[in-house]
Amino acid sequence: MAGVFCDITTSLDGFVAGPNQTLEEPLGAGGEQLHEWMYSLASFRERHGMPGGEHGPDSDILDESVQRTGAVVMGRRMFSGGEGPWDDDPNPNGWWGDEPPFHVHVFVLTHHPREPLHRGETAFVFVTEGIEAAVEQARAAAGSRDVAIAGGANVVQQYLRAGILDELQVHVAPVLLGDGVSLFGDLDAPIRLEADRVLDSPQAVHIRYGVAR
Amino acid sequence: MAGVFCDITTSLDGFVAGPNQTLEEPLGAGGEQLHEWMYSLASFRERHGMPGGEHGPDSDILDESVQRTGAVVMGRRMFSGGEGPWDDDPNPNGWWGDEPPFHVHVFVLTHHPREPLHRGETAFVFVTEGIEAAVEQARAAAGSRDVAIAGGANVVQQYLRAGILDELQVHVAPVLLGDGVSLFGDLDAPIRLEADRVLDSPQAVHIRYGVAR
Repeated sequence: MAGVFCDITTSLDGFVAGPNQTLEEPLGAGGEQLHEWMYSLASFRERHGMPGGEHGPDSDILDESVQRTGAVVMGRRMFSGGEGPWDDDPNPNGWWGDEPPFHVHVFVLTHHPREPLHRGETAFVFVTEGIEAAVEQARAAAGSRDVAIAGGANVVQQYLRAGILDELQVHVAPVLLGDGVSLFGDLDAPIRLEADRVLDSPQAVHIRYGVAR
Repeated sequence: MAGVFCDITTSLDGFVAGPNQTLEEPLGAGGEQLHEWMYSLASFRERHGMPGGEHGPDSDILDESVQRTGAVVMGRRMFSGGEGPWDDDPNPNGWWGDEPPFHVHVFVLTHHPREPLHRGETAFVFVTEGIEAAVEQARAAAGSRDVAIAGGANVVQQYLRAGILDELQVHVAPVLLGDGVSLFGDLDAPIRLEADRVLDSPQAVHIRYGVAR
C-alpha cells in the first residue's frame, strides 16, 4: 500500500510561513526565506518549466520527493486561500496557475462540494468526507507511488494526530522567523520519531523521520 | 574575547521541556525523552562522576562542549526553580546537589542579591545587573575559553534578541512533545543563521549555527 509522507520546510523555530499571510504574500512576512534552498535547484526549475539550475544534494532530495509522489492531499486554504463556499472565494480556481507543479491528482479537503478541476497535467479533486476519505482516494490514485500530504500545517497536524502519516521529512531553513504559522500544534500525547536520514547543505538541513505507532 | 554559545536540546517541535514542570519533575511531562541521547554517554557519565558509558559522535559533541566552557550563565529558575526572594525559595541552594556538573563559575541571573555559593568545584555567583553584566563577568571568568548560556528558554531568547549569542547548537531529539516550554519566543525581526556543522546519530541530530549580525 502506498506510504503517506510529508515533505515540508520550516524555520528553525518551526514556522512554515511568516506572520500576516495575505493573498499577495501567501508565505507571510519573511516566509520567502524558508524556500530559498529550493529556488535555484535544477529539479525545482524543471518542475516549474524552467531550464538550468544547480545540481547536488538539495536538488536530489527535491527530485526524490517529486518522483515518489503519486498523489497529493492539501487543505482548502493551500489550494485557494479561501475557506467558505466557492462563490465567496476570491481565488476559486486556486493560485497554482494554468500549469500547476503537481502533475498528479491533488485531493483538496473542503466542506464545499465541487466538480474536479483540470489544469495542465494536474487534476484537483475536492473531497468533503474528511481526511481519511481523502487519503484513501489519494492512495487509489497513487498506484505504486506514495501519497504526499502537502499542507498546510493544520492538515499535517490532523494526519499526524490520526496516526496516518508514515514519514515526515523536515527541511530546516537557517532562519528564526520569530512568529508565523507553526507546523506542529498541540498533540494529545508525545509522538516518537526515528530519524533515518540526515543530509545537509549550507541552505538547509534535511531530516527524514519515520513516525512511530 | 570569549565566544558566547548555547548548546541546547529540543524536541522536533521546539520544546526544551514538557508541560507541567514541577520541582519533582523539572523537565515536565515527557521531557526526560529529550535527554535520552545523553544519559548513556561516556562524557555525560564522567561529568557526573560515573564510570563507563558509550563513546561515539554524541559523546564527542558533549565532551567538546564541556571542554570549551569556561563559565556558565543561567536563569534563576534553572538554578533553583524559584523566582522571588531567596527566603521564599523552596530550594534555596539549587537543585544541582553537592557536586554540580559545571566545575566552573556559574552566573545566575536574579533580582535578589546574594553572596556566592560554593558547591564542589562549582561557584554560583548571583548577578542582579542584567544579562549584559552577567555575560561580562562570565567572560572575565572564562579566560581563554567560552561562555555557555545554559538556559532556560527565556534566558536564551534574551541573549538571542540582544545580539549577544554568537553560536547556537541545537540537539534535536526525535520526538514531538506537542506542548511544553518552547525554546524560541517572539522576535522583533527574523534572525539569519548559518549552519556550519551537522552531525547525527539515531538519538539526536546536532545542528550548529552561527548567528548572523
